[in-house]
Amino acid sequence: MNATILAPIAGLDAFLADAAKLLPTGALLRGEACQPYEADASSCRGQAAAVLLPDDTATVSALMRAAVRHRVRLVPQGNRTGLVGGAVPDGSGRQVVLSLARMRRLRAFDPLNRSAVAEAGMALSELNRLLEPHGLWLPIDVGSDPAIGGLIGANTGGSRLLRHGDVRRNLLGLEIVLADEQGSVLDLLAPLRKRNAGIDLKQLFVGSGGALGVVTAAAWDLKRRDASVLTLLAALPSRAAALDVLDACEQRFGEMLSAFEVMGESALMATLRHFPALRHPLAESAAGCYALVEIASAMPGLDSMLQEQAETLLATLLQRGLLIDAAFGRPDSLWALRDSLPLALAAEGLPLSFDVGLPRSRLPAFHAAAERWLADEHPALRLYDFGHFGDGGCHLIVLLPRECAAGYSPARLAMLKSALYRLVADHGGAFSAEHGVGPLNAAFYRKHTSDAAQELAAGLQRLLDPAAALGRHRYD
Amino acid sequence: MNATILAPIAGLDAFLADAAKLLPTGALLRGEACQPYEADASSCRGQAAAVLLPDDTATVSALMRAAVRHRVRLVPQGNRTGLVGGAVPDGSGRQVVLSLARMRRLRAFDPLNRSAVAEAGMALSELNRLLEPHGLWLPIDVGSDPAIGGLIGANTGGSRLLRHGDVRRNLLGLEIVLADEQGSVLDLLAPLRKRNAGIDLKQLFVGSGGALGVVTAAAWDLKRRDASVLTLLAALPSRAAALDVLDACEQRFGEMLSAFEVMGESALMATLRHFPALRHPLAESAAGCYALVEIASAMPGLDSMLQEQAETLLATLLQRGLLIDAAFGRPDSLWALRDSLPLALAAEGLPLSFDVGLPRSRLPAFHAAAERWLADEHPALRLYDFGHFGDGGCHLIVLLPRECAAGYSPARLAMLKSALYRLVADHGGAFSAEHGVGPLNAAFYRKHTSDAAQELAAGLQRLLDPAAALGRHRYD
Repeated sequence: MNATILAPIAGLDAFLADAAKLLPTGALLRGEACQPYEADASSCRGQAAAVLLPDDTATVSALMRAAVRHRVRLVPQGNRTGLVGGAVPDGSGRQVVLSLARMRRLRAFDPLNRSAVAEAGMALSELNRLLEPHGLWLPIDVGSDPAIGGLIGANTGGSRLLRHGDVRRNLLGLEIVLADEQGSVLDLLAPLRKRNAGIDLKQLFVGSGGALGVVTAAAWDLKRRDASVLTLLAALPSRAAALDVLDACEQRFGEMLSAFEVMGESALMATLRHFPALRHPLAESAAGCYALVEIASAMPGLDSMLQEQAETLLATLLQRGLLIDAAFGRPDSLWALRDSLPLALAAEGLPLSFDVGLPRSRLPAFHAAAERWLADEHPALRLYDFGHFGDGGCHLIVLLPRECAAGYSPARLAMLKSALYRLVADHGGAFSAEHGVGPLNAAFYRKHTSDAAQELAAGLQRLLDPAAALGRHRYD
Repeated sequence: MNATILAPIAGLDAFLADAAKLLPTGALLRGEACQPYEADASSCRGQAAAVLLPDDTATVSALMRAAVRHRVRLVPQGNRTGLVGGAVPDGSGRQVVLSLARMRRLRAFDPLNRSAVAEAGMALSELNRLLEPHGLWLPIDVGSDPAIGGLIGANTGGSRLLRHGDVRRNLLGLEIVLADEQGSVLDLLAPLRKRNAGIDLKQLFVGSGGALGVVTAAAWDLKRRDASVLTLLAALPSRAAALDVLDACEQRFGEMLSAFEVMGESALMATLRHFPALRHPLAESAAGCYALVEIASAMPGLDSMLQEQAETLLATLLQRGLLIDAAFGRPDSLWALRDSLPLALAAEGLPLSFDVGLPRSRLPAFHAAAERWLADEHPALRLYDFGHFGDGGCHLIVLLPRECAAGYSPARLAMLKSALYRLVADHGGAFSAEHGVGPLNAAFYRKHTSDAAQELAAGLQRLLDPAAALGRHRYD
């Protein structure tokens, strides 16, 4: 059931007339002014009937009431850092973008409770800038700078999930505007770490991409910032060895292992080719892959102890044949090697990106199977991988050399994608590790989600949004 | 709507006839054999029409189908360690206990992925016993020994939530039997740390007390066991000072602060009176309260460093007037002081227990307000507190001396409870921190949950259990 298809244009006009009354001047955009709000960080682009920029929860509630009454579809939007088009309106010109960009207050900050309440439009970087003088942070570390609402919608993980967990694990509360006739405001913001007093309703809205309600504010369980940090790059003979090295690092450093990012040799070489300012921290070697290892603690004064322990561990790993070479380095210069990869690969050809999650124990076998499959089926294409090996996250890039691109029609590309996601599923993995579900991968949701799960998701959306007034991706 | 009230006895008989065919011999109990399954660790006691003991998921599914068809209410049950009667059948003799006690296999264990899949009837202690040789554990630390299913239903927190989080934070996957006509099995067991591929349906079943589906197995994100541990008891001038000491400990030890338990002076004294084998580790002093502080890491070899750092910190705290005295001690002997409190207080009179959660920054003000209120309104009663100060959890005991008990009718006790929960709410807290919702506190759920939240919870239950075939506590 997709109510917007049936919605008469009259409903949209009447809604916009209502919205104009509810919003301050300049907070309802039409026509060309909507353009910046019609795309995200992916290739996805749509056309909005209008963009609404409310600056408080009461206005969001009133707009929701109007949208439900007039059967108009609202697409909640934050900083447009998404990679699957989940916050981009479709091409019909009838969906309305509900941007939270003007709701960016820090509503509350309680250092002794290590908690803060931030509105949905505040950028992650802004929240962390405000927290820095207090030695606290929200430890979600991603390449982009999503808004709070986007973090919730995507249940963002990032590079330090291994130690700090995903958004859900750092969340204490939410305020949500529901897509019911009243535009009910669900105030679940109490910053409590222990609350087991009925169904934990806020969990419904985490990782649901704005499909079940509009998040207007979130309460966070803040952490103390890292005070001791050690970063190193290790050249490893193989991904199987990487798994053993990961295990050894956890045995030695426990919860202080903060990141364990693995990238293939070819990916690192491509980066060094395209960013001449970056240096290879190790001598040339026949490494199968490289691991960027970060060990960190919020306890100050541990740097030299961590380095000493790491040196001992590296010596043992060398002896066991699990390590080829390793070097300590400044965090920013080592992370630059990893973070520059996507741009470098884009310069080498046409990249097809996959963001998949697997049991980490199966990453080596999965990678080997993917390489074999590509060599057999698409020998002209190249496979690159980098990502969050420590938590099973894997960014896989299949690179089409420019001279091959003509041979790949959209249909052939779709088949290629489909075959690769099949390999992921065969290895117990998920087709989307961090990017969520949107128009760009909705077909794979249908394919790789059981009927029982799809039915329940659809039921939830019908329960929470009976008028289909909300969200870009529909589960029903 | 409560369907069992309308259910004809014929439905129950027909269901039991079906169940007898589905279960192996000895797995359907009637009459007196049901008695052990009719109570939990609270004062709650009910009467079961029967107890079912399936030993696999397929049988649970078949039983659920039959229950939905015959409109019979199943009450899922684990190790009966609950404290609010949430897994105890009511007194009608028409509800049927669905015990998961025979489903206790470890289905999968993947040390390199640090994950395990355990069935719902396995006890927490049993899981940890199996994991110990591998240096891994599920770091939920509670006084009782719940089954896996009970852990999920209650979203158990415990004494080390500060460092390790609650059950939800350590959970990777679930298998659930739904209360639909098919008894659908939702297999969400894949042990993935990064999976953002649609609404995370398993979250619905965590902390919902078995009201939305029957959990049959769970996949866990295991942690490496502590290898360095420091435990100390500190005498503090006041609870306000405890808050500053907590903050100082976090600044010094970061994520290694593993537990910060505070107990009132009077509570500790009562324990020492009733357990003569326990020693006061500190000289007599005019402390307002005591903090049991545990600093721990899975990194080995840190013991002496931690002790050195703690000594420096304690000296600073002493100088700042935040500390009266402190002593390091063996973990088991210090924890015994805290863990013996409930029994000691029960010996002193009639204890009324409250398990509440607050922002930890408000614990001192809340405690002072509760003391003032009790002194004003019930001067003969005494207030004791102990609990998880570091995460805002507070076990409060109002003790009725035996000679006063006669003056407190059930109605007067209910009013007392109600007034105390009002104080909790006034300080931004929740009426149940860890115990969940069951017949013993359902009235407070109604009182302290917003209409919008109650309506959504009811809607979820109607969606997931349209035949009202499941759960002791109903949200609809």
